[in-house]
Amino acid sequence: MPQHFPRIGIIGKIGDPGIGGILTELYRYLLDHGYQVIVDADSATLLNDTEVRSLALSEIAAHCDLLIAMGGDGTFLTAARAVADFETPLLGVNLGRLGFLTDISPEQLTKRLEQILAGQYISEERRTLVATIYRDERIFHRQTAVNEVVVHRWLTPSMVEIITRIDGVYLNTQRSDGLIIATPTGSTAYALSAGGPILHPALNALVLVPLNPHTLSNRPIVVDDQVEIEIRFSQSTQINAQVTCDHLEIPDVLTGDKIVIKTAPKPIKILHPQDHDFFNILRSKLNWSGG
Amino acid sequence: MPQHFPRIGIIGKIGDPGIGGILTELYRYLLDHGYQVIVDADSATLLNDTEVRSLALSEIAAHCDLLIAMGGDGTFLTAARAVADFETPLLGVNLGRLGFLTDISPEQLTKRLEQILAGQYISEERRTLVATIYRDERIFHRQTAVNEVVVHRWLTPSMVEIITRIDGVYLNTQRSDGLIIATPTGSTAYALSAGGPILHPALNALVLVPLNPHTLSNRPIVVDDQVEIEIRFSQSTQINAQVTCDHLEIPDVLTGDKIVIKTAPKPIKILHPQDHDFFNILRSKLNWSGG
Amino acid sequence: MPQHFPRIGIIGKIGDPGIGGILTELYRYLLDHGYQVIVDADSATLLNDTEVRSLALSEIAAHCDLLIAMGGDGTFLTAARAVADFETPLLGVNLGRLGFLTDISPEQLTKRLEQILAGQYISEERRTLVATIYRDERIFHRQTAVNEVVVHRWLTPSMVEIITRIDGVYLNTQRSDGLIIATPTGSTAYALSAGGPILHPALNALVLVPLNPHTLSNRPIVVDDQVEIEIRFSQSTQINAQVTCDHLEIPDVLTGDKIVIKTAPKPIKILHPQDHDFFNILRSKLNWSGG
Amino acid sequence: MPQHFPRIGIIGKIGDPGIGGILTELYRYLLDHGYQVIVDADSATLLNDTEVRSLALSEIAAHCDLLIAMGGDGTFLTAARAVADFETPLLGVNLGRLGFLTDISPEQLTKRLEQILAGQYISEERRTLVATIYRDERIFHRQTAVNEVVVHRWLTPSMVEIITRIDGVYLNTQRSDGLIIATPTGSTAYALSAGGPILHPALNALVLVPLNPHTLSNRPIVVDDQVEIEIRFSQSTQINAQVTCDHLEIPDVLTGDKIVIKTAPKPIKILHPQDHDFFNILRSKLNWSGG
Repeated sequence: MPQHFPRIGIIGKIGDPGIGGILTELYRYLLDHGYQVIVDADSATLLNDTEVRSLALSEIAAHCDLLIAMGGDGTFLTAARAVADFETPLLGVNLGRLGFLTDISPEQLTKRLEQILAGQYISEERRTLVATIYRDERIFHRQTAVNEVVVHRWLTPSMVEIITRIDGVYLNTQRSDGLIIATPTGSTAYALSAGGPILHPALNALVLVPLNPHTLSNRPIVVDDQVEIEIRFSQSTQINAQVTCDHLEIPDVLTGDKIVIKTAPKPIKILHPQDHDFFNILRSKLNWSGG
Repeated sequence: MPQHFPRIGIIGKIGDPGIGGILTELYRYLLDHGYQVIVDADSATLLNDTEVRSLALSEIAAHCDLLIAMGGDGTFLTAARAVADFETPLLGVNLGRLGFLTDISPEQLTKRLEQILAGQYISEERRTLVATIYRDERIFHRQTAVNEVVVHRWLTPSMVEIITRIDGVYLNTQRSDGLIIATPTGSTAYALSAGGPILHPALNALVLVPLNPHTLSNRPIVVDDQVEIEIRFSQSTQINAQVTCDHLEIPDVLTGDKIVIKTAPKPIKILHPQDHDFFNILRSKLNWSGG
Repeated sequence: MPQHFPRIGIIGKIGDPGIGGILTELYRYLLDHGYQVIVDADSATLLNDTEVRSLALSEIAAHCDLLIAMGGDGTFLTAARAVADFETPLLGVNLGRLGFLTDISPEQLTKRLEQILAGQYISEERRTLVATIYRDERIFHRQTAVNEVVVHRWLTPSMVEIITRIDGVYLNTQRSDGLIIATPTGSTAYALSAGGPILHPALNALVLVPLNPHTLSNRPIVVDDQVEIEIRFSQSTQINAQVTCDHLEIPDVLTGDKIVIKTAPKPIKILHPQDHDFFNILRSKLNWSGG
Repeated sequence: MPQHFPRIGIIGKIGDPGIGGILTELYRYLLDHGYQVIVDADSATLLNDTEVRSLALSEIAAHCDLLIAMGGDGTFLTAARAVADFETPLLGVNLGRLGFLTDISPEQLTKRLEQILAGQYISEERRTLVATIYRDERIFHRQTAVNEVVVHRWLTPSMVEIITRIDGVYLNTQRSDGLIIATPTGSTAYALSAGGPILHPALNALVLVPLNPHTLSNRPIVVDDQVEIEIRFSQSTQINAQVTCDHLEIPDVLTGDKIVIKTAPKPIKILHPQDHDFFNILRSKLNWSGG
């Protein structure tokens, strides 16, 4: 009799019909053990079950006690944004290489699930970001990011000038390709490629990483995650800029807009097996030989 | 009686009417000393002389024995592309901060000019690049670059996969924001912001600098400038990519195109005052305190 | 009648007799305004006062309600270690360039002092580190660091192998020249030269920065400052290693020793003028042009 | 009847008795095929042959037509310094992981040897450095380096100030832990850990890489390898400094000494199998996934 998570949602890797087999295995396992299962609408078509209960990505979190994301870190990020407004915990199953967020392998799937569904897990909170775009002092767009918000030049091949304020205090004006604001979760993703440090997941901090800054002494800066970061462009002309949340683009941002980035009020919850070891994943993902 | 450079061209900073005064000073000085002077069409409108001889940027180099670029490094690059197919030497006058390429200040203008026109100068050769875009095995576009050719993701907020061959030999496939191929001249420009090394101007070399590569062990690589660099995208879908030469965009490049980068057959010639000191400019421009 | 800090200590820049003038000015100002003043023994000899009350560096903090450090960041670090076991707040007066810690200039000295002694100041806490060296399971040496603890190869021209554990969990084994563990205060010092990020002073975090690591994907990692960091060498042979706290060397460390680094139980208190602005100092010290 | 290399020398990994088996195999193979074989004195003790002809490391190159180094890149560097004054080509056999210089694996040993001894090889020239220490205008010490010369602080935990001149022209004064001057061969060794670029082996260039420089805008600089690099310390006090060539220390260097680094008059010759591919080794050694 399932106690902890009577209703379980599944989100599969988007646009990958090759996951049908492992998805079906998971689906059947859960049904066989008495759980109610809801599958995202796309993945549902891969199951040979006319009675499958399916919901859109945006609906699924509200109806589950646990959401399982099956795919790579990209799928996990999609699932994480889906649960951002709820309390639903997330569990990540990787379908290839070990991921920072998806630390259950297909081979271990049923063994690990059995443990986790029996209550043997570590629950970890990860804070997310909310980027709000203001135009003429009104909210124009709002988006959640689990990894990072990136402000980047767009179309123009030249650098942009970005003015940053932290809690209303002027930080700097930088000519660069852009600026990354990353969570600890995102610090091992794009921000790391851009020269940022690794932030331990338990740290209540954000990192601002400049993208190819003109001023060579410009460096990543780590700040408390309760600050409000305000970004403006110094260009007075209204050209387009690219603002992305976890590589999803916010449409139609102009250089006259104001971008405000804050930590979301609620963290997301991630479940891990009890032997979860962040440092071990770090060594493995980053090819650190000292093993 | 001017011996070395009877015909002198002037290219002024594009779109900056504020240079009228210093431009007129230069123009008058040259006329007064018996030189024939040709001014680029835009700058000519800033001179109060109805008899000024002017030519389009693309025409001017063919009719001069010396071309003076007055502005920042950007103006110098424009002038450099204009002389790329000719033997015409270039002289750079900065209108603000000292530039890597424009090392004569407005205050010293007439004194320096007198010396240089009397034959007291250092002549330096700088090699340039030619980027050729091939589509379906045919040349689709060709462009000269003095500083660098940049291949960059465009529109897409995700990394691109770039396959590089050097003289036909496979170098690597990198997921990144893009790749810079810079000359020694360009090594102190955008490539430096992206983490590339400084290449001494006399070096016959190019540097390939990855832009925020996914693989953390990816590093800039310096190669002989007589190699042929071939770049392809691994994407099979025909999305757009951004290819720029000195921040000028080559239009309509697709990820199915092949980009070939080679050193131009002819170097450009740059004149400097006899006390020109590259290391001194380096210390000054990069804020190295050790003066 | 001085209320806040009846007894004020002064520590002057060590070994710099040139500070006699400004030191005397400060000393007289405080006496004239009714404060008891104690001067460090070295600096006392620079004052033309046979009745000056002086104490050794190690004694002075216990007898003061405020300690003024006059010199560069080096002098401030010396003073900071002196107050580490006490509640005595610190005030830094720079004698040359603006320092990260010494943000009162000699020109503003009396004006700023008047404000601060009247209670108009910002009080900031900075956490420090304690490095403990264990040999054969016994404490062999213990030292406080305000900026950073550095473990470095010594004498040997080859890299060393450093094994790091955080709260008992294995992080990695790295071949490198060494490892820096820096506080937020130290993040703008040596750690920055080694490629570390800037940590905002209010952040409760430490950063581990590898020194020229053999593994290219090795990166700085930021962790909570309540962790215990344990460092061992993988060498079994008993060669010397260099362990320094704020560039002061702990003598006779061997590669068989265990080094444990923890945040000190008590933070130090630093006083700033009320218009203190960390970002402004950052821009100024790092030559960020965007001013 | 061996044509190309009648006399073959062998240098084995120093201090590793475990190489006896593969060493004997190589030794026997060469004898059986009619070659004269000379083995370095240490390795000779590992062969079960009382008649083995052995010579000291410093003697062996003068008596061989080919020198085989068996070990890692460290063994190869030792062998390379041994042949630096001769024309003797070098062949590298790795005993573990693929090396940049030792690209024949033990498994392929006899097959590869057969080809190379039959004249099927690529011969590559690599330039080396000579570091000369001057004290009171006299040569005090001279040493060859295949990878790099490193000038490093020694004993002192503080940064040193290094003044560099290139062909007599002042480059800069840097406060740092030290300075690396690396050949293309060395650019994939220590210099890479310190943030230097990769130089293609065919490039006639050197790279200067600062070690943790105080000035954040300090960057690696690549220069022609025919320059003369002169290094002095700004310290007037005569403290010790550490100067190493390929991690071998030059004894007793003082901060008052002058260090001059030049390319050696003669390059060394390295033989490779005909399918040798530098980029392939690069991808493999640096864990570039794009394979």
